[in-house]
Amino acid sequence: MSVSTAAVDRSVRTPLPVLGRDVTVPLVTGGEVTYAALDYAASAPALQRVWDDVAAYAPYYGSVHRGAGYLSQLSTDLFENARRTVAEFLDCRTGDQVVFTRSTTDSLNLLATALPEDCEVFVFETEHHASLLPWRGARVTCLDAPDSPRAAVTALERALADRDPYGTALVCVTGASNVTGELWPVRELAAAAHAHGARIVLDAAQLAPHHPVSVRDLDVDWVVFSGHKLYAPFGSGVLAGRADWLRAAEPYLAGGGASRKVTRGADGGVDVEWHEGAARHEAGSPNVIGAYAIASACKALTEAGFEALAAREEALVRVVRDGLADVPGVRFLSLFGDEAPRVGVLSFVVEGWNSSHFAAALSAEYGIGVRDGLFCAHPLLRRLLGGDGRAQGECGAPEAASGEKSLNAIRVSFGAGTPDEHVERFVRAVRELVRDGARWTYRTVDGRCVPDVSA
Amino acid sequence: MSVSTAAVDRSVRTPLPVLGRDVTVPLVTGGEVTYAALDYAASAPALQRVWDDVAAYAPYYGSVHRGAGYLSQLSTDLFENARRTVAEFLDCRTGDQVVFTRSTTDSLNLLATALPEDCEVFVFETEHHASLLPWRGARVTCLDAPDSPRAAVTALERALADRDPYGTALVCVTGASNVTGELWPVRELAAAAHAHGARIVLDAAQLAPHHPVSVRDLDVDWVVFSGHKLYAPFGSGVLAGRADWLRAAEPYLAGGGASRKVTRGADGGVDVEWHEGAARHEAGSPNVIGAYAIASACKALTEAGFEALAAREEALVRVVRDGLADVPGVRFLSLFGDEAPRVGVLSFVVEGWNSSHFAAALSAEYGIGVRDGLFCAHPLLRRLLGGDGRAQGECGAPEAASGEKSLNAIRVSFGAGTPDEHVERFVRAVRELVRDGARWTYRTVDGRCVPDVSA
Repeated sequence: MSVSTAAVDRSVRTPLPVLGRDVTVPLVTGGEVTYAALDYAASAPALQRVWDDVAAYAPYYGSVHRGAGYLSQLSTDLFENARRTVAEFLDCRTGDQVVFTRSTTDSLNLLATALPEDCEVFVFETEHHASLLPWRGARVTCLDAPDSPRAAVTALERALADRDPYGTALVCVTGASNVTGELWPVRELAAAAHAHGARIVLDAAQLAPHHPVSVRDLDVDWVVFSGHKLYAPFGSGVLAGRADWLRAAEPYLAGGGASRKVTRGADGGVDVEWHEGAARHEAGSPNVIGAYAIASACKALTEAGFEALAAREEALVRVVRDGLADVPGVRFLSLFGDEAPRVGVLSFVVEGWNSSHFAAALSAEYGIGVRDGLFCAHPLLRRLLGGDGRAQGECGAPEAASGEKSLNAIRVSFGAGTPDEHVERFVRAVRELVRDGARWTYRTVDGRCVPDVSA
Repeated sequence: MSVSTAAVDRSVRTPLPVLGRDVTVPLVTGGEVTYAALDYAASAPALQRVWDDVAAYAPYYGSVHRGAGYLSQLSTDLFENARRTVAEFLDCRTGDQVVFTRSTTDSLNLLATALPEDCEVFVFETEHHASLLPWRGARVTCLDAPDSPRAAVTALERALADRDPYGTALVCVTGASNVTGELWPVRELAAAAHAHGARIVLDAAQLAPHHPVSVRDLDVDWVVFSGHKLYAPFGSGVLAGRADWLRAAEPYLAGGGASRKVTRGADGGVDVEWHEGAARHEAGSPNVIGAYAIASACKALTEAGFEALAAREEALVRVVRDGLADVPGVRFLSLFGDEAPRVGVLSFVVEGWNSSHFAAALSAEYGIGVRDGLFCAHPLLRRLLGGDGRAQGECGAPEAASGEKSLNAIRVSFGAGTPDEHVERFVRAVRELVRDGARWTYRTVDGRCVPDVSA
């Protein structure tokens, strides 16, 4: 089979310019090639426009909030305008709050500290650890992986209806799986939640870079996402939504910015009055550049048009699936079926290959950056890989103990900045590796599978 | 008196290049002038070198940790090397951990979650809110403002000796006041803490940009600082020091990166094994650019030489003090006396002036950016200003209710990037404003004192 993107509608726009698009990397087999960044689901490159905006602003950076100088006031305005831009991007309701955090993980941890007492949390086992784990101190009901969007809704409805006591509840669900890329029925899940007196937070980390997210239309109570997956990798994330729980909660961080008035108490201690707005949860100097970068990305994506971006990504997904359909031993991971709608995120295993080895060969011999592992979604991976309890894997941490891994997978993911050639090269590379094997030998050094340069 | 820097040793190096050094701002009285950023104690401009390093890296930005691609591995190495650079910069002990956070506030909030049970915290009322407030759930002993470094040590010794029960304790102290700039006797306070079986964390937010900080020499258990005050404003901060409490603590954030293994429990819930190293407290994708920027700043400051930087700043402090010594009504705020050693941070009030008005005039008529308010250190300001309990002030938050303020001050602060001219202009401006009054009229709009352009 010859790999081709003939199926791609050429009328769909070309990729958006991103930083690093011309970066070349050496191949272990000789020569250099432009780097194919196909790990967008972990961190996407910065949009050129985001970078340009940050670079244009950087000389005007100043201390925010109480600074009296010109650049301080400019920076303060820029920061608060970024908040408004994000609110527009997410189509927030009047009265919703936009809190700048450092990431999706941070946003969900913040929301976890704002749960009313005795709030029960409902989450599918298929979620990212950032959605599974933050609810410390709360009762968490973990739902089994559903085999269809409909089954997800049914399972949630049943669990919410059966809860005992029938008290305050929060549902946390992803918009698009960080493993399979599959879209979840957010609107239906939100309706189910609300029908049963629960609230819902949407993890849009994987959705927002690919599809428009309307808080209003989806009728979710909160939405969270990260800058670094939204082409704005400057250390900021977002929690947006209902103000009431946030206003009633203890400040997420205690410190300046969150405190309105601090006095010595009669007992010699310290008394505090906290702010009630977004500042309540943003103690410390805000990351102005990070927030501005997110706002810039929101504008750039909106102007490019999600319809065109999504159509292009869909075509690239098709290139991967069609290009590898007849390759023996390549198995894509899916909950809802191979044809389920998804964003540009696909995970797979290759029979007879250790996934780390396969990913290392893609990098060293083709200049393609994918990801191998369990993608911070261990229960889901174990389910999809047929884990037998031995399945283990390091998730994102440096001190990987690779010897322990008995199961993992490979994930390829792309987005607004991905040229066709990267995906075409990926398809060709997988086909060649499966057919001919790696041309180099590899070994594990410090937990990484790397080419054995002594070979 | 003519303002001059004749006293400045011209052999001391010129300022380090920073972003924004050529930015001009309009004056309300007509014309433009280069912006004098004199609010370094809030946020310092980026060193040109930090920016250049970030700009050179940005195209190579990639997903860290489990990414198999070339740029992912490069980014992972860069991130972990940044950790080592910071450890060297702080002269950490073998076995100390460096955790990347988002700010000093975040670092102290993290440490607060790692306090052993029943740990008592000792803190002077003179601290920044970020040091006063994070110890939620712990017993906090707030010590009165001392009038000398020696009195601080004595007060701490007494408080620690008298503690009942004589259990685990933590002292939190600043290295340099964010209000007065005065240096605190960190080494002596650390010795006192250790002599009484307590530990100590150094808030080096204001110290690290101006003086070398050696964890080993000062014998502090932890040190915290922020990138945005260290000429690296990309959303990162640092907590560095003893690993034991951090290893024993619950992860600061729950999510990917911090979790080693996640499984469904027998009860249908989720079981987690957490990492033990720095990753334990760094859940979510790390802010690679922020960490790299801090490392770049650490190198730049070390190479420039703190001796020269500190000497130059000392000379600039002298310019301010000498230049304003004979100005009637200008009163500098100080705990330890006007001649106490300090970093380039000075706060003052001007008799007959509302501080916000004065700061607004410095900005609008001279292009000088200072800060007015209570500097997130309300108890200290109330003490220094002779507060009568009515003292109120917004701290860092956008929704300032300026009408409530009965007391506040003006702070001027500078650092490695400040040219002599900025400080000279500041002195001239203060003298002129006190002598002649503002040339424009001002009014409060949205909590900000601004020139009345309808005037």
